[in-house]
Amino acid sequence: MSTIAVDAMGGDSAPEEVVKGAILAKQEGIDVILSGDKNLILSYLGDEKIPIVDYPQVISMDEDPAKAIRTHKNSSILGALTLLKEKKADAVFSAGSTGATLIGSISVLGKIKGVIRPTIASVIPSSEKEVILVDSGANLEVKPKILYQFAVMGSKLAELLFDIKNPKIGLINNGEESTKGRDLEKSTYKLLNTSDLNFVGNVEGKDFANSKVDVYVTDGFTGNIVLKTLQGVAKLQMNLIAESLKKNLFKPLLKPVKNALSPVKKLLNPNSTNGSYLLGVNGLVIIGHGSSNAEAIKNALIFTNKAIEKKFISNFSDVSNEL
Amino acid sequence: MSTIAVDAMGGDSAPEEVVKGAILAKQEGIDVILSGDKNLILSYLGDEKIPIVDYPQVISMDEDPAKAIRTHKNSSILGALTLLKEKKADAVFSAGSTGATLIGSISVLGKIKGVIRPTIASVIPSSEKEVILVDSGANLEVKPKILYQFAVMGSKLAELLFDIKNPKIGLINNGEESTKGRDLEKSTYKLLNTSDLNFVGNVEGKDFANSKVDVYVTDGFTGNIVLKTLQGVAKLQMNLIAESLKKNLFKPLLKPVKNALSPVKKLLNPNSTNGSYLLGVNGLVIIGHGSSNAEAIKNALIFTNKAIEKKFISNFSDVSNEL
Repeated sequence: MSTIAVDAMGGDSAPEEVVKGAILAKQEGIDVILSGDKNLILSYLGDEKIPIVDYPQVISMDEDPAKAIRTHKNSSILGALTLLKEKKADAVFSAGSTGATLIGSISVLGKIKGVIRPTIASVIPSSEKEVILVDSGANLEVKPKILYQFAVMGSKLAELLFDIKNPKIGLINNGEESTKGRDLEKSTYKLLNTSDLNFVGNVEGKDFANSKVDVYVTDGFTGNIVLKTLQGVAKLQMNLIAESLKKNLFKPLLKPVKNALSPVKKLLNPNSTNGSYLLGVNGLVIIGHGSSNAEAIKNALIFTNKAIEKKFISNFSDVSNEL
Repeated sequence: MSTIAVDAMGGDSAPEEVVKGAILAKQEGIDVILSGDKNLILSYLGDEKIPIVDYPQVISMDEDPAKAIRTHKNSSILGALTLLKEKKADAVFSAGSTGATLIGSISVLGKIKGVIRPTIASVIPSSEKEVILVDSGANLEVKPKILYQFAVMGSKLAELLFDIKNPKIGLINNGEESTKGRDLEKSTYKLLNTSDLNFVGNVEGKDFANSKVDVYVTDGFTGNIVLKTLQGVAKLQMNLIAESLKKNLFKPLLKPVKNALSPVKKLLNPNSTNGSYLLGVNGLVIIGHGSSNAEAIKNALIFTNKAIEKKFISNFSDVSNEL
């Protein structure tokens, strides 16, 4: 049976919501080990029996990740990664500092051969299917060759997740024409265009409304902004819709309409789609939103468990040959 | 009476949709002059009497804007800008190449004293009010001092448009903490934090769902991606909602629900909110989406006319003292 090592101190409402989420996941038959401040975790566990490793240090969101990983040897994220390294767990989940998870993973697990910079890929909804956004927040500033590698890793992820051949790759840019973008996009366009990838060209934010590509490639700064704008706008529009329905619709109709809208609300709600892949390290590491509540943690652990069952990491490691 | 010089050759469906939009605007009492290929424009004008200046050259979206402005002296955008410069018009409207409009405006009209780089500001919907996004696509790569000036110009625009004192300014970043971001955001944060502006700190894409700030400040690459993601996601969600309602709702309810949703759809539809301000040049220049159809052009011309009536440019020029 597989086990997930959970960074219990990572996230805006950690450890309380993380521990509660782990309890919910356990009730769904998922095996977890909690890494964090043992006494604090026990106070939230109640009568539940979940193994704990005592790594009490917390890395906060505003610390410099590289420095924090060097100086916090007993941090909860390093505890979780050590469990994976020592094969006492099959995957790590953290909703803590993305930078610390990234740098900790490189340091403890090592990079897959040939990878310059590991990256974070998020699965996001689109019109007819799900799509991948890579990098969704790990590497704020990158070079063309690095962005090219993100495309290769994103393509491999799409193949494995969606079970498709030659996923369509698009470069996020401020226009469709090949001459658009900063120097970064112009040079990356050339690399992608002469590669073996199924590169369809530049894509724009408006393309989220269609199914033009399977993988959106960008730097981690832009990717983070895209991902959060997606969530912000979806919520904004839902709020506006709720107000407008309340004002303009005959009251007895509200309830059936609300029910009919709920699948869409769920689809674009970060708490139900929580979980991103850290790609390019030797091990399965899944990252959740910092704002995750217990329900979101539970969903992310179910998501992580599915990736373990699909033997994600042994299948992904081939990417080495394509870089 | 005021007049708008319209770049008739600018836009994906120019000149046809632009000419049709100008005809619609004229029917609403707005005075326009068309700059472009006279014979071609006449073929779309039919019996309508709208003055034309013959500037037949077109600058396409994939040309280098600086080079195109130097080599296309008879381009339609330069014709429109010349009308404004010579006080034969009170404003310019273009749905053509943003880069060419920006560089042409600097070259023909000149920059407002103290402005390093003119910028484009877009008015976008938010939860309780409209907000401003600056730079929304003009300057792809900038320095901290330039981003600071965008904040000053955005603040002034919010004061004038929304009739508020000390608009709240937020810097778009990949997290709220002051240590977040690339070097650009870290340095700009310090400049904004010690300025006279009402700077509330870093903001994220998810903040579009609340009313935390009046002005979102970012570079033009990120701003373009944010703006188009906003449009893409709004459209995606509306499509998903339409499908879900069709599937889950009792058929006779569809029509009243669709009617109740229509104000929200309109609010987040780029064709109804078309029109961005080019800030920092000596003259009123409004930029529309390249994909504008006749209806969008008409709305943008109504928007431009309102800005003229508000004496926008004479009020905005004071910004010089605050840079």
